[in-house]
Amino acid sequence: MLLSEIATRLGLEQLGPDREILGVNTLESAGESELSFLVNPKYTKALEASRAGAVLLSAEHAPLVESALLSENVYMDLARVVSLFARPQGQFTGQSPLAFVHETAQVHESATIYPFAFIGPETRISANAVIFPGCYIGERCCVGADCLVYPNAVLMSDTVLGDRCIVQPGCVLGGDGFGFAQTPAGHMKIPQVGHVQLGDDVEVGANTSIDRAALDVTQVGSGTKVDSLVQVGHNVRIGEHCLVVAGTGIGGSTHIGDGVVIGGQAGIKDNITIGDGAMIGAQAGVNNDLPAGSKVTYTPMMDIGTYLRVGAALPRLPGLLKRVRRLEKELERARADKGGEQDG
Amino acid sequence: MLLSEIATRLGLEQLGPDREILGVNTLESAGESELSFLVNPKYTKALEASRAGAVLLSAEHAPLVESALLSENVYMDLARVVSLFARPQGQFTGQSPLAFVHETAQVHESATIYPFAFIGPETRISANAVIFPGCYIGERCCVGADCLVYPNAVLMSDTVLGDRCIVQPGCVLGGDGFGFAQTPAGHMKIPQVGHVQLGDDVEVGANTSIDRAALDVTQVGSGTKVDSLVQVGHNVRIGEHCLVVAGTGIGGSTHIGDGVVIGGQAGIKDNITIGDGAMIGAQAGVNNDLPAGSKVTYTPMMDIGTYLRVGAALPRLPGLLKRVRRLEKELERARADKGGEQDG
Amino acid sequence: MLLSEIATRLGLEQLGPDREILGVNTLESAGESELSFLVNPKYTKALEASRAGAVLLSAEHAPLVESALLSENVYMDLARVVSLFARPQGQFTGQSPLAFVHETAQVHESATIYPFAFIGPETRISANAVIFPGCYIGERCCVGADCLVYPNAVLMSDTVLGDRCIVQPGCVLGGDGFGFAQTPAGHMKIPQVGHVQLGDDVEVGANTSIDRAALDVTQVGSGTKVDSLVQVGHNVRIGEHCLVVAGTGIGGSTHIGDGVVIGGQAGIKDNITIGDGAMIGAQAGVNNDLPAGSKVTYTPMMDIGTYLRVGAALPRLPGLLKRVRRLEKELERARADKGGEQDG
Repeated sequence: MLLSEIATRLGLEQLGPDREILGVNTLESAGESELSFLVNPKYTKALEASRAGAVLLSAEHAPLVESALLSENVYMDLARVVSLFARPQGQFTGQSPLAFVHETAQVHESATIYPFAFIGPETRISANAVIFPGCYIGERCCVGADCLVYPNAVLMSDTVLGDRCIVQPGCVLGGDGFGFAQTPAGHMKIPQVGHVQLGDDVEVGANTSIDRAALDVTQVGSGTKVDSLVQVGHNVRIGEHCLVVAGTGIGGSTHIGDGVVIGGQAGIKDNITIGDGAMIGAQAGVNNDLPAGSKVTYTPMMDIGTYLRVGAALPRLPGLLKRVRRLEKELERARADKGGEQDG
Repeated sequence: MLLSEIATRLGLEQLGPDREILGVNTLESAGESELSFLVNPKYTKALEASRAGAVLLSAEHAPLVESALLSENVYMDLARVVSLFARPQGQFTGQSPLAFVHETAQVHESATIYPFAFIGPETRISANAVIFPGCYIGERCCVGADCLVYPNAVLMSDTVLGDRCIVQPGCVLGGDGFGFAQTPAGHMKIPQVGHVQLGDDVEVGANTSIDRAALDVTQVGSGTKVDSLVQVGHNVRIGEHCLVVAGTGIGGSTHIGDGVVIGGQAGIKDNITIGDGAMIGAQAGVNNDLPAGSKVTYTPMMDIGTYLRVGAALPRLPGLLKRVRRLEKELERARADKGGEQDG
Repeated sequence: MLLSEIATRLGLEQLGPDREILGVNTLESAGESELSFLVNPKYTKALEASRAGAVLLSAEHAPLVESALLSENVYMDLARVVSLFARPQGQFTGQSPLAFVHETAQVHESATIYPFAFIGPETRISANAVIFPGCYIGERCCVGADCLVYPNAVLMSDTVLGDRCIVQPGCVLGGDGFGFAQTPAGHMKIPQVGHVQLGDDVEVGANTSIDRAALDVTQVGSGTKVDSLVQVGHNVRIGEHCLVVAGTGIGGSTHIGDGVVIGGQAGIKDNITIGDGAMIGAQAGVNNDLPAGSKVTYTPMMDIGTYLRVGAALPRLPGLLKRVRRLEKELERARADKGGEQDG
């Protein structure tokens, strides 16, 4: 594709000579027939050293390169330009005779069902959805239009996906929540009879687990993106347009607002409420409700400003103990001297 | 089912008018034909606002509702009542011709084998067990009676499940332990020739991994429940009736007693011993043996009382540093003054 | 196998009477026809109590047993002796007619393809590789010679494995990286068009996820071993001969040198560089570049020596707050007295 054609398609201004562009790559790796990009000004040196045929960047950096596409939101336009070159995963269409599709399932004629996929009773697969090999879609599920359900993902019974959801490989939606009643005879399982519901444009990462509700529904709102190896407990409700980074765990029945960002490996207690727009740092342990707009991190949870000061102070704690001991001794001596004076 | 019939089946006292009950739901979501429940008195307001047709609760809260089932252990009776309405996952019976069952495997005639399940040589599947699509049951495994092995679970060779175990989707039992000898040529794999053994009534969560032993056996005792995304290292022994919450990692060869409760995302060192009834907080880092009945949390590990005080004190650490500096200066000045006096 | 034959095969010195040896086991569990081993001198008591037929140990401990194999590197020789008795997982050979192999895939005649495996277009499976049931190998992948790809592992398009790699069950290689551009309409997916490449002799644990690069490649160097439930972000590069323990998360575009050891549940920030030979403790939060040879742990990250002192001091922090308050009061009183004196 010519650079000029990319410019036209994306509505961007092009500077410098036109070129044939075959793909997109990093400043470091791009060759003469590849487009690269500059998002972070700290990579200006890499920009100058790059062999990229053209670079997508903001107007102020354009003088540093020969061929440029100008953008006011480089990261967004990067997403758009990569889309022009992206090839989808898999090359199949149609419904494989090696799949198992229950006779009561409704599969849209434009959907793709790969070999070894299992589609259960009364389940609906909508237009253009793609179900990869090894997926299990249980009974009474609904997979929305244009969904991609990657290999070996599991949707247990009654799972609902909105349109354009992406379920990465090995993801489990609707496994049983962890609910047991304590009895003299041991932990008695509370049957988990609820289900999981994702909105539109939700993405869920590889080997992530979202548990079915005990009774009603575990929900993930439209536009929310959940990374790999995340655990979402039963009855959780996550709002719209959130980001949940890899390794995070969210305890049962916790409600999370819209636009919340949760860093990697964070742990969020069960039965709490996180307000809209809250930001939770990586590895944080959130054990209490958070008002909208909170910025917290660490275990025990603190606001981020406090954490930075505490983090800087912590290595000085052992020294502080010694300093206080020294002060105590000095005051002891002073008291002894004074006592001596008074005695004398 | 009539409320009076539920009362009879569970042996509970019924108060107020009888009704047709079609299911169980939360106070918030339940409608007129649903039974709800009150476990935690803090939800008394939700109880008053609920449209539930009847409520399972303790006698003291009965005056707040029209129709009630009285219980002395609401959570346990909730488990029992939900069981009356629960539908099992999947609707198949029998052994699918689309499964692969090795000719030397012994599958009980009452067991269910779904399409695309793989049952290896010399493996035994007991009465009423259900093996879902995409499961791999390797050679010489034994799956006990009434076990549920959900989709895409993997049991590597020689894995033994007791009766009534539940293996959630994507769970891996018997993957290789992480054992390597350091050699001048790099990390040399120590073949992991042991196996994994679960007792009766064990549940293992979605995408959890329990590694096979290096030589003998990795064990999980009867009645123990392991949540999603947990890692259990090789040679670990977990006792009976434990609860291990999601995201926890247990290092190799560690022994855990009976009735231990481990919070989410805790990390437990290899080669240590945790006594019966210990309670380990979420995100704790346990790096030493724990006596029976210990209650610890945090990294570095502390008893829970100490942690609460330390957690409250931590945000005050930066201010403490300043206060000590101020004290030091004051004493310096005092010393200087005194020196001046003595000199004078 | 006779003990003497083992000695000959491994080139080790044998002491005491010869015996028939049928396997290897721990000191605790070994019987008369099993070989055991002593790696850690703290188990000398277990050695004395052991019923093992023979023991692999260093010369200094040989007098404690009747039959011995002498070794200067017991752990390495243990790996070698276990290999003599290890049976591989699975018992199949050849290519199952129940697998799906695309007509453009090239599968070496010595490779094994189990039932329900999926081999995509233009993919190459090399000599002696074994692809277990339920594996998905997407298009244009390359699986090197002697690789073991265990059940339900997923290799998305363009994934490359060197020779002798081991992919544990449920592992996902090449799922999409977590990359989104922020737009007024929400998070816009940046298509992830790069791929994953493992060197030779790499092992990847059960249910681990290694994301494909956004544009170029996510790499794991030869000889590196990655444990279960690890998340490796897009564009990460891990060097050779590293060990990454279970539950760890590595953020996108981070570069890790050779010979690095990362403890369990550690979290490593995106876009940083870890030098060769660094050691990172369990549960550490690494948020900055680390020079070669660093030894750090904890969140906030500290060198290990500092951490040990801080960890010992932390439980004393609440008491320290009280002690400082006491000092402040004493000095206040002293000032008041002095003021009184001066007034008087």
